[in-house]
Parts: sequence; C-alpha cells; structure tokens
Amino acid sequence: MRKNNKKINSAILIIGNEILSGRTQDLNVLFLSNWLNHKCGISVYEVRVIPDVEKIIVKNILDLSKKFHYVFTTGGIGPTHDDITAKSISKAFKVNYEYHKEAYSILEKYYGKIKFNDGRKKMAKMPKGSQLIYNPSSAAPGFKIKNILCLPGVPSILRSMIDNTKKFLIKGHKTLAQSINLVTVESNVAKELGKIQKKYLKYVDIGSYPFFRLGKVGVSVVIRSTQKKKISLALKDIKKMILQKKIKTFKN
Amino acid sequence: MRKNNKKINSAILIIGNEILSGRTQDLNVLFLSNWLNHKCGISVYEVRVIPDVEKIIVKNILDLSKKFHYVFTTGGIGPTHDDITAKSISKAFKVNYEYHKEAYSILEKYYGKIKFNDGRKKMAKMPKGSQLIYNPSSAAPGFKIKNILCLPGVPSILRSMIDNTKKFLIKGHKTLAQSINLVTVESNVAKELGKIQKKYLKYVDIGSYPFFRLGKVGVSVVIRSTQKKKISLALKDIKKMILQKKIKTFKN
Repeated sequence: MRKNNKKINSAILIIGNEILSGRTQDLNVLFLSNWLNHKCGISVYEVRVIPDVEKIIVKNILDLSKKFHYVFTTGGIGPTHDDITAKSISKAFKVNYEYHKEAYSILEKYYGKIKFNDGRKKMAKMPKGSQLIYNPSSAAPGFKIKNILCLPGVPSILRSMIDNTKKFLIKGHKTLAQSINLVTVESNVAKELGKIQKKYLKYVDIGSYPFFRLGKVGVSVVIRSTQKKKISLALKDIKKMILQKKIKTFKN
Repeated sequence: MRKNNKKINSAILIIGNEILSGRTQDLNVLFLSNWLNHKCGISVYEVRVIPDVEKIIVKNILDLSKKFHYVFTTGGIGPTHDDITAKSISKAFKVNYEYHKEAYSILEKYYGKIKFNDGRKKMAKMPKGSQLIYNPSSAAPGFKIKNILCLPGVPSILRSMIDNTKKFLIKGHKTLAQSINLVTVESNVAKELGKIQKKYLKYVDIGSYPFFRLGKVGVSVVIRSTQKKKISLALKDIKKMILQKKIKTFKN
C-alpha cells in the first residue's frame, strides 16, 4: 500500500481475564509492537489490557478508535461464553452482530457440516460490514471493521495471520533503532545523554536501559528514529562522549 | 492491614518506550497481577502501557487514580533523561517535585558523598508528600503518593521491593483459582460451559483457554472466585458434564 509522510500510529487492546489474573504471560504485545514499528512503520502509542466485560470493551474500543489510526485487538474471538469481542464491537459501533457469509462458509467447509456445531458457528458471527482477516492455521478468521483489526489471543495463530492484515494498513516511515551497550552505570552518563537527547529532540528518541550480564553492570543506549542519518549523528556524539569518559562497550 | 469486605481493585501503568517499541518483553504485569490477585486479594482491572511523555503520564495517572483503589506504576524512576515518572506525577497532583530528605540520605549513604552525582541525586526527587517504598537491592527507593505506588521497571529490583508496598495496602478477599485440563476442543464444550457460567454468574468466573501439548489439543478451564465452595460446586458441574460427554482430562 502507499507510503505516507504522516506519522501513522496505533494502539493494542488485549482482551482477556487470563492476563489480568496473572495466569498467562502476554506475548502478543512484543510481537505486534515489533511487527508494527519495524515492518510497517506504524508506531504503537498505547497498550491496554482489559477484562472480558462488554461495557468495558465497548468503552475502550470507542476511546482508542477515536485516538489512533489503527487499533489491534487480541483475544475473545473463540467459541466459548467468555469470547465476546465481536459482539461487544458490534455494540460499540451500533451495527448488527450477525453471520458473515464468507466466514460461515469457510468454517463449514473446514469442520464439515456435521461437526459444525453452535460454538463453531459463533466464530462466524461478526459486526455487520466486517472484512475478513484470513487464518491459515485454524480457519476461524479475524476481522476488520472501521479502524479496528481483531485477532485471536493464541500467539501462534495470531502470528500466522498477521500478514493478512497488511492489505488494510497504510504504512508510515519505519522506525529504525540502533543500540550501544556501555560498561557503566546509568548515573555516570545521565547528564551527557540528556544533552544529546536535547540536541536531537525533533528527530531522535534516546532510551537508556540498565542491565546485568555475566556479573557485569551495563547500560543499553537505544537510539530510535525514522531517519538513519540522525541516528548516526546521535551515535557519533555518544561515541565521542564515552571516549572522553573512558567508558568501554560490551563486545556484542 | 485490615481485611475489608469490599472488593479492592487496582490498575497497572507500565511507563516505558521500550515496551511500546517492541524492544523489551514486559514481565512485570504477570508478576504484579499474581502478587496482587493471589497474595493481597486486590483485583487487577486494567493494565496500560504508555510512553515516557509527560502529558500522557499526567493524563493516565489522573484517570486511573480516580477509577481504581490503587495504581501501580513501573518504570521511569531511574537517573536518566527519559526517567520522568516522578516529575510527571508531581505535575498531575500539582505538588512540588523536590528532594525527599530520607531518600536523599539513603542514596548519599549508599553511593558515598563523592560518587553521589547529579544523576543519582535525581533519584531522590519525588512529588512532595511521598512516602518511600524501600529498595533492598539497589537503594533507590520507590514512592507512594495518594493511591499511586511507583516501582522501577527492572523486574528483579521490582520484585525485591514488592513486600515493602504491603503496609500501604488494604487487602481484599483473595481470588482463588482451580483449573481442569480437558482433552477436547473449545467448541465441544462451549455450550455447556456457558450454561455453568450462567448458573454461578454472581460468584464465579469461568475462563476457557485452548492449548497444544505434545501434539495434543486441549482446553484449560479455569474457575476463579473468592469463595472456595463456589469453585467446588462449579467444578463438580464441569466434571459431571465431561463424564456425560466422555471427555478425558490431562494427567497434570
């Protein structure tokens, strides 16, 4: 799809009690953030995790839908009673919650007429006007309505479907990132990094993250920008600074 | 602290570009959700991940602070330019952002007067009126102001501090959970689980999560409640249902 000069942004809405209860480690935010930022040039500005409660889903869908170019949801599109994402989004946009003909026929074909029971049929029900996001691994499609793209919660299935969302997205400039790992502590470079951040404020985002590796303390400095040249300039300044302060870097 | 009959709730606010950019896998939500739900009886109702941007932090702090009994923040309390949580919360509550005397003396003692540079001093600056959350692993304390509890983003340090937040919390009834893993697919039990959920709607939350293990497909049914007896009743109904449907369970 066409590249656009505008900065395109998005939010991720994780729908599922199992994340809020502490039962399940979410893996979808990391995957989606990487895919959106680095493959599509779409910045992720916010993530929310909310329970399987209709009123709350409706409120968050309306809120995020207004604020961002795209909203990716995960979870709640399976066959059981706690899967209420499609119904809730229908309510949010005041459209019918009904069988999507193509989804119905995909699922009927996949399961066979005899095994196509009520639970499975439910997976073909969507907000009226939805477009399908095809699912190569387990048939049940996701869907897109307005600027909302609905994906399943199971990470392996979500990943198998992600390329099928591409046709719905206008891409922006990709965010590039370069990092340098210093053998030092944050407070030793805080002042200098702050100055470099100020110098490139318009173009570059510099993050500083402490870590421990093999008994050594380090700081990972990450420079992010849509412009490769600006990253190089900021990196040059950082390298100059660490030379002056006699700070070594980690080898990898 | 005193137990309360009221349902106590909370939100988690993850502050950090590194999660939104896809650089870092968040581990704090899982840990905090488990600790709050199961150790403290405090339900986690919402999680948000937001960037290190003052205006956005201010808005989310005010919003979540009003909606929930407690808000746990992680990230943004280190020494570098991108650590702006304390300053932003001061703005949110319109209080001074200033040195906390005890925090200052803890850090001065920890680093020694000579090594106590500006970056390190910054970690003693907090919203006026904050109470300290002591840090046994790396000295720099977190803080509590109003119903906001601020913790660092590094998971190992956060975990070492968590018990020191206890004195600030009113605890609720602990959420208990029991699960049963069925050798079946979700759509085969969707209708029946929905009925059992309806029967115990007031007391019990039943979740259904598909999984794959050693080439087999399964469904993990999780029953959550603050009342052990109600969990047993729902579990009994589920066991009766799977007996009727000749569904086996996984051994562990």
